[in-house]
Amino acid sequence: MLPRSSGVSAAMTIASIRVYRDLLDGNRRWAEATRALLRARGWTLVNMIGAPGSGKTALLEALARALPDRRTWAVIEGDCATTRDAERLRAAGLTASQILTGDGCHLTAATVHQALCDLPFAPRTLVLVENVGNLVCPASCDLGEDAKIAVLSVTEGEDKPLKYPILFRVARAVVLSKTDLLPHLRFSLDRCRAALRQVNAAAPVFELSAKTGAGVPAFADWLCAAPPAGT
Amino acid sequence: MLPRSSGVSAAMTIASIRVYRDLLDGNRRWAEATRALLRARGWTLVNMIGAPGSGKTALLEALARALPDRRTWAVIEGDCATTRDAERLRAAGLTASQILTGDGCHLTAATVHQALCDLPFAPRTLVLVENVGNLVCPASCDLGEDAKIAVLSVTEGEDKPLKYPILFRVARAVVLSKTDLLPHLRFSLDRCRAALRQVNAAAPVFELSAKTGAGVPAFADWLCAAPPAGT
Repeated sequence: MLPRSSGVSAAMTIASIRVYRDLLDGNRRWAEATRALLRARGWTLVNMIGAPGSGKTALLEALARALPDRRTWAVIEGDCATTRDAERLRAAGLTASQILTGDGCHLTAATVHQALCDLPFAPRTLVLVENVGNLVCPASCDLGEDAKIAVLSVTEGEDKPLKYPILFRVARAVVLSKTDLLPHLRFSLDRCRAALRQVNAAAPVFELSAKTGAGVPAFADWLCAAPPAGT
Repeated sequence: MLPRSSGVSAAMTIASIRVYRDLLDGNRRWAEATRALLRARGWTLVNMIGAPGSGKTALLEALARALPDRRTWAVIEGDCATTRDAERLRAAGLTASQILTGDGCHLTAATVHQALCDLPFAPRTLVLVENVGNLVCPASCDLGEDAKIAVLSVTEGEDKPLKYPILFRVARAVVLSKTDLLPHLRFSLDRCRAALRQVNAAAPVFELSAKTGAGVPAFADWLCAAPPAGT
């Protein structure tokens, strides 16, 4: 996983190792700028990372039903192509912007910073980033966020924390989504929790179904309690 | 998506732009060496790409039941961590080796070439590669394969061909997996097929369930008919 510059393919633009290092350093600098922006505004930035189809957008729609009047919040969507997810969230009444990465496999700090700057100001805003569907590359990229959250659908199998340990190691919380499908799957919540504990002993686990709403309020409570940056 | 050197992080080892270009060229050279190896041996190499938990390993287990005596075949597994998948496939009676990529988000031509060289020789062998679970990065990396195949679970949503168009555009065939779960999902096969046709008009679509075996023989037939390289 290589951090990428904002919307520009590193492979196409590198003219010297110095420039390449500038690209790497560039992401760190944008992440630091984002941390400063969050502190100045009293905002909280949460980076949601999960595989394609793990239910991240459906979870945000469910949060739109569970969270609306408890905290000001907004969403920044990341996808390779289409604005479908941001359109879904706006239809659910949310403030949502869309970053398109093209062949980029994860969001970068520069584009997220720009999207943050373009959001309307309100105190103590919680900004949820839905990263590009990918369990590997986004896990190692610093967006300046307060927390990374891993979203794992129970349809994906119990062993994913062991097979993609980098994400699950850094995750501040883990969402096990689509629990309504459990009766139709060979999936043991106990074995999945045990796999997770091998790489991350501390992260709270939220088992939920965006479809039925079960478990969503507990995750909304946790998000509402997330402190603003710098406090 | 940046091609990576064999098991070495490009970001850690680059000393000049010349070396960086060597890394990029290196993947192409290994891919060409693999094409030459496949031609010399009369082998066929198929690269299976899908999201984490899309059912690639379960599909290979189902093929072990549907395909065994019709063609000599072997599997090369790619994962960030653990040898669980290769162990599963060996338990199913298959010849399977495992490549671990660490923080690498896709297999590279160099490591796949080495794994190919280490396989026992038999004429007209079909080698199936299960790439790291990822819909973005593996799609742009040339392994020297005869065909890339996209595996999409129906639990992931109908819109994935539009949201991850690079993979679905280059795929020579598309597998829609886990169809046994369709009665429990809001997923329209028609809408998914229509989304796929927007980016790829030609690829055959195989709707199947590794769990029940439905649809697996048709996909096995297609694989058996895949010609060896250079014919």
